[in-house]
Amino acid sequence: MTRFRLDVEYDGGRFCGWQRQEVCLGVQGALEKALTRLHGHPVTVDGSGRTDTGVHALGQVAQYDTSNPRPVDEVRQAVNALTPPEVSVTRVSEAPENFHVRFSAVYREYLYRINNRIAPPPLDRERVWHLFKPLDAEAMNAAAAAVLGHHDFSAFRAAACQSQRVDKTLERLEAFRTGDEVHIIAGARSFLHHMVRNLVGSLVMVGHGKWPPERLREVLDARDRQKAGPTAPAHGLYFTGAWYPGEKRPTD
Amino acid sequence: MTRFRLDVEYDGGRFCGWQRQEVCLGVQGALEKALTRLHGHPVTVDGSGRTDTGVHALGQVAQYDTSNPRPVDEVRQAVNALTPPEVSVTRVSEAPENFHVRFSAVYREYLYRINNRIAPPPLDRERVWHLFKPLDAEAMNAAAAAVLGHHDFSAFRAAACQSQRVDKTLERLEAFRTGDEVHIIAGARSFLHHMVRNLVGSLVMVGHGKWPPERLREVLDARDRQKAGPTAPAHGLYFTGAWYPGEKRPTD
Repeated sequence: MTRFRLDVEYDGGRFCGWQRQEVCLGVQGALEKALTRLHGHPVTVDGSGRTDTGVHALGQVAQYDTSNPRPVDEVRQAVNALTPPEVSVTRVSEAPENFHVRFSAVYREYLYRINNRIAPPPLDRERVWHLFKPLDAEAMNAAAAAVLGHHDFSAFRAAACQSQRVDKTLERLEAFRTGDEVHIIAGARSFLHHMVRNLVGSLVMVGHGKWPPERLREVLDARDRQKAGPTAPAHGLYFTGAWYPGEKRPTD
Repeated sequence: MTRFRLDVEYDGGRFCGWQRQEVCLGVQGALEKALTRLHGHPVTVDGSGRTDTGVHALGQVAQYDTSNPRPVDEVRQAVNALTPPEVSVTRVSEAPENFHVRFSAVYREYLYRINNRIAPPPLDRERVWHLFKPLDAEAMNAAAAAVLGHHDFSAFRAAACQSQRVDKTLERLEAFRTGDEVHIIAGARSFLHHMVRNLVGSLVMVGHGKWPPERLREVLDARDRQKAGPTAPAHGLYFTGAWYPGEKRPTD
């Protein structure tokens, strides 16, 4: 058996999220269909993290095993030819047998893009959350810094979250302005369901001056989803990467 | 009568170009419909330049006259509310009566985006021309410099071009690499139909080493469309702006 690692980008607007689905196309299913055809046997693909419908990926990592390996360049070309243009495999590499794309990951990162100018952005309309009211990115960043570290993140957890544990270690949460956009970067070994989008929704309450910066930490400590802000829309969120032991992380 | 100037962005993939059309939606028609409703009388919109189907705009400039003027912020909000999300008015200003968006323009600029990495870019698939074979941007830039100035540009003119004159003054033509992309910037008072896309198609012949850099100038001098390269696809092209007397240009 040979284990391949795939680095994958996709437009979340085209797929019903990462997971294979019966009724609509998940990225996982699209990759499996192409790889099954390439290798001539049923292929099961695992991902480093699930993404919801609408969430984009710039650095999803996937793996699969095959008894009929092909050269890495051939795999990349074949998958890109056999999948819709909304998904792309940017790199194919052989992975050691003890590598597991999900369980071996030590760090994951997301980017959230908010367009913060007065006019809606037609070319990026499916790539950013447009908020025309000016955001105070510095206040958002101050609020973000106060929730870093190991905490019970129940306040920012979706009702549907299946995670058995609610404690997570948030290693990075930064908000900053870049041109017309405000970017939020979130990094942790793992996240609860909707955790990044819920944190973004609450940071926007701070950015709009509806909450003082210290309120974010109070919401965290209250462990009550009702007290948090709204969930930010999926189409502004990008899964930017998963990191494995021995790899240099953005926080290093 | 009050003359308004609109600065407009749009996703060319959604419209049959700039011009109003009977059978499908042009940007001009979309704006006229919204403005007619806002001002309560038929409105005719003029643009600083036509763009073909698929060509995007980051800096189209439009104008119209009304006998029932509204405050500029109200115009911007109303037009953006009454048009599809693929077009956006970023700025509204009152223009002097002797201002004409098309005839007063002294300089126009376009950007062409080529994605030049090996894997197709799913998130930018409708925003860039993807060419996986490496381009030599320096050779392209050298070729570009040799066609600057006042020339007969027949070699880079579309068969359907209605321009009576074939001489144009190319003030800017630059190719450079930025990350995974090669950008080409073209600037002139005016252009022939398809001139930028035809120049880009020929520059790509240079970038791929199929032509030596000096060939571009030879093609120009031959004034024969048959000798030029292919027309680059519309979806990589952006109309980035029109400049008027007294305004600082990118080349200043």
